[in-house]
Amino acid sequence: MKQQLKISEAVVRRLPIYLQVLNELSIREVQTVSSQELGQKLDLNPAQIRKDLAYFGEFGRKGIGYDVNYLIEKIRQILNLDTTHYAALIGAGNLGHALCNYNTYLKDNVQITAVFDASPSKIGTKINGLTVQPMDALRSAIQDQHIRIGIITVPASEAQNVANELVASGIDGILNFAPAILKVPEDVRIHHANFTTELLSLAYYIEKERLERDE
Amino acid sequence: MKQQLKISEAVVRRLPIYLQVLNELSIREVQTVSSQELGQKLDLNPAQIRKDLAYFGEFGRKGIGYDVNYLIEKIRQILNLDTTHYAALIGAGNLGHALCNYNTYLKDNVQITAVFDASPSKIGTKINGLTVQPMDALRSAIQDQHIRIGIITVPASEAQNVANELVASGIDGILNFAPAILKVPEDVRIHHANFTTELLSLAYYIEKERLERDE
Repeated sequence: MKQQLKISEAVVRRLPIYLQVLNELSIREVQTVSSQELGQKLDLNPAQIRKDLAYFGEFGRKGIGYDVNYLIEKIRQILNLDTTHYAALIGAGNLGHALCNYNTYLKDNVQITAVFDASPSKIGTKINGLTVQPMDALRSAIQDQHIRIGIITVPASEAQNVANELVASGIDGILNFAPAILKVPEDVRIHHANFTTELLSLAYYIEKERLERDE
Repeated sequence: MKQQLKISEAVVRRLPIYLQVLNELSIREVQTVSSQELGQKLDLNPAQIRKDLAYFGEFGRKGIGYDVNYLIEKIRQILNLDTTHYAALIGAGNLGHALCNYNTYLKDNVQITAVFDASPSKIGTKINGLTVQPMDALRSAIQDQHIRIGIITVPASEAQNVANELVASGIDGILNFAPAILKVPEDVRIHHANFTTELLSLAYYIEKERLERDE
């Protein structure tokens, strides 16, 4: 199934959030939801939501709203969630542990299936059922287990080396949590999950809202 | 200093990333940088970078590029980084530990100054110099220490309760790491730092690029 839709990056980042809310509604057996209700839950403008969802055709009905299960199915299709993506995590520190525990939430869409660390004290220990492996097992694991995503949770000083090893192992995408800008070849997709960025943009909005209140 | 600039949310999220790269350049005593060079480092289109930075006036010079230190100063001004924002972190698990260790990178812009947890086994322990406090100390700490940001790193099932307590304590903004959609009053800003979202959007692009290669 080929998709030729041009969906903006911002929309792609919002779709999994829509999906999360819709799944919660589906579990509670709610059958339809309006853009107003979604907007309230997500702190987003209902017009923005209607615009985002219009990318995928007209499936909201005026005055009735969206069919929850149909919308879930549609978003899963767009995000290719019926394919399972395997991920390797490198860096079995506190953040690595925390992320492995997310495996439960990821369900069958993305699964961390291998964990690596350079430290002899960590190799052989278990995190959420996965045994921490030495770095020299990385390449064969990625190739044998069809792993396409690498998650970097090592210190900033080590991150570029790990990225290089992932690239050499033939990975397609990297999610980098280390506070460092990494260089990878053009055909490897890299996303930076930067805690600092999140905090600074939050601080920006808080300050802005305070200034607006004081006017 | 009042700012009436309309800056899109996507740009606000990119500015701290620009700042990170610029700080790295400044440390290496690089004085000017072109949008091409920034684009390469950040995997962004140079035209996009010029557009983002044009929000703040014309300070790039054709053929020469941007003055690194001037751009740093300008972005710091826009993000109000000369104000220090204090943050409280709730949930002293693996993720909480990992985030406290980021304090070093945050420097004087945002500082986690207090950590809380409900578990008696964690109360009194130290994380990166901060003593974990019981939940009933939350409200007075927020008020006494002028804390304006709450960081939620508790399990999903506890997150709404913690958000309610933060709101009752008069917090201005929340950064939520729990995989749950939280409800807060309109005057409280909430950002969701969702690992699942990051991974799913990465998976989307990998799949899309694979399909494009196969065409």
